[in-house]
Amino acid sequence: MNNRYCVIMCGGIGTRFWPFSRHDRPKQFLDFFGTGRSLLQMTVDRISPTVSSDHIILVTNSEYYDIIREQLPEVKDSNILLEPARRNTAPCICWAAKHIYAQNPDASIVTLPSDHLVLKEDAFRQAIEEGFDFVEKGNRLLTLGIKPSAPNTGYGYIQQGLPQKEFPGIFKVKAFVEKPNLDMAEMFVQTGEFFWNAGIFLWSAHAILEAFDKYAPEIAQTLAAPDGTYASSAETQFIRRHFPDCINISIDYAIMEKASNVYVKTVEFGWSDLGAWKALYEASQHTEAGNVTQNCEVIANDCTGTIFATENHKIIVASGLKDYIVADTEKALLIYPLKEEQKIRNIVNDVKNRFGEDYV
Amino acid sequence: MNNRYCVIMCGGIGTRFWPFSRHDRPKQFLDFFGTGRSLLQMTVDRISPTVSSDHIILVTNSEYYDIIREQLPEVKDSNILLEPARRNTAPCICWAAKHIYAQNPDASIVTLPSDHLVLKEDAFRQAIEEGFDFVEKGNRLLTLGIKPSAPNTGYGYIQQGLPQKEFPGIFKVKAFVEKPNLDMAEMFVQTGEFFWNAGIFLWSAHAILEAFDKYAPEIAQTLAAPDGTYASSAETQFIRRHFPDCINISIDYAIMEKASNVYVKTVEFGWSDLGAWKALYEASQHTEAGNVTQNCEVIANDCTGTIFATENHKIIVASGLKDYIVADTEKALLIYPLKEEQKIRNIVNDVKNRFGEDYV
Repeated sequence: MNNRYCVIMCGGIGTRFWPFSRHDRPKQFLDFFGTGRSLLQMTVDRISPTVSSDHIILVTNSEYYDIIREQLPEVKDSNILLEPARRNTAPCICWAAKHIYAQNPDASIVTLPSDHLVLKEDAFRQAIEEGFDFVEKGNRLLTLGIKPSAPNTGYGYIQQGLPQKEFPGIFKVKAFVEKPNLDMAEMFVQTGEFFWNAGIFLWSAHAILEAFDKYAPEIAQTLAAPDGTYASSAETQFIRRHFPDCINISIDYAIMEKASNVYVKTVEFGWSDLGAWKALYEASQHTEAGNVTQNCEVIANDCTGTIFATENHKIIVASGLKDYIVADTEKALLIYPLKEEQKIRNIVNDVKNRFGEDYV
Repeated sequence: MNNRYCVIMCGGIGTRFWPFSRHDRPKQFLDFFGTGRSLLQMTVDRISPTVSSDHIILVTNSEYYDIIREQLPEVKDSNILLEPARRNTAPCICWAAKHIYAQNPDASIVTLPSDHLVLKEDAFRQAIEEGFDFVEKGNRLLTLGIKPSAPNTGYGYIQQGLPQKEFPGIFKVKAFVEKPNLDMAEMFVQTGEFFWNAGIFLWSAHAILEAFDKYAPEIAQTLAAPDGTYASSAETQFIRRHFPDCINISIDYAIMEKASNVYVKTVEFGWSDLGAWKALYEASQHTEAGNVTQNCEVIANDCTGTIFATENHKIIVASGLKDYIVADTEKALLIYPLKEEQKIRNIVNDVKNRFGEDYV
């Protein structure tokens, strides 16, 4: 366990949950389920039994420093990596790997998104531990593939290849597939060979840095610093100067789809990326009428399939809503059909143009 | 003008506009139209050119003293009559008449509700002045009858009788009719003889006190005080002791439907009693799509016939609402079909039972 590290990526910005998620308070910092813990805090809680707390590294945008300090006071400052610019996941992962490798060349790393939901935490931890066992035995890049519960067209898929004999549930990756249409997705689910790409990765620091050298050398070179820079007081200065020069690219494009030593561990632990209201609806407990209430009290008459969410534990009285989002904050109220939620992105732009940055 | 007084009844309680109107802040104190003036303030503004400000008397329940002081700092304390108990309009009007008569036996009085809307204020004031002229010429009780713009079943109607030759637009009252069904209301409108009962009355102090003596002697006697009590420092004490003994009855039942000297002045000045959301909807300006926005900014997609109202000038983004009420306050949010608004009263009881008095 002493060589095991966790990198939590929590710099994401998103307005798909507007008016809840806003530019100054994106989704990972929200207490969606009214439990008193944000998705980021829940992510830290979930991995803490597996990785010692001083081995948990947060990578985020510098503008979220204050909110991270507030939500995770137990994390020490040197474990918070502040990106001076947004460059997608590949540069972020490369930096974190270099930061960890400088402290411990034998390190193995699990990289986690900070804004997903996991219902079965024991199964999650067991999968992570088996993943560590696997990547610590060789130069391997491992991604977790979630057994699909439905032909979801909102996720990328991973096709499994040859099983790895000594590691049940681990396969060579045959292909990464972008978000499919419904026909494709149904076919994927039927074959049993395809799994949701959850963006959860395991590797040794050595293996991922070697992969960067080989498949994304421009990033590796941009972040190549003189010995003794990473994990020292010189790191911040170096990153501030060079990180913005990295190309903007995801780890999937930069490494996973190119490398030959990529494996998938198929798992089932009640996962959702909570990518949008519909996913939140599905991941939440339902009332008898099939509604979801988040942080509010609802008196509903003739309402079904509707998600009611408020910021300040308000009372909502509603009638006749079918498959709606009702999301209320201090500044804004959204009442929108769930099936049209893809329009919210444009609406948020409209709100921004008409009423200013404060609202989005 | 020096003998002319105005009594504004502003002790009403109502939760039909819940969550906006609440027990501690009923409708007359709300700034429904986002103009910066409450309905009560607008009522005072409307009558001020006609009645000098020290002749404007407010009758309300003692629990609203603070909010009246706040909204109408220019009204002197001795012009605020605080009812120690709710006894409907007849005792309230009797008290106010005695209070005024004690100061000026030649007084004439217009009595106004505090929570109605008048769009044509000039026409309103002209009607009031013509009404004063009429009641100052004899022992007459005058009520205003609004020319109906639709067969509204939510109002009581007044049927006109013989015209009064020297007073165009003033008729003897033939009958008061309770809220009719739709067939009746349509017939009323067709005949042109029926007018909405707006609860606006004019009379001399002498005439109304004489009418109380004759038609509601139990109230007159309960409020009969030794000479020198009314309009003196002894009045408050007397009222606190005796007012609660009055029977609970409206001025219509107690006097207007019984007296023989009752007249109606037919008027048209863009009036609404704003009795419920539907009336507020109809009295408000509509967007192209037929929506109404009160004190909020709305981005509406495929919404029609819907009233959007917020307390703190919020942004609302909505889609697919037809004929809805969306009413948002700090503590509660109502999303309800306009045509079911009569259910709101029961809902408010439900809210009260489940969440406590604070919410209603």
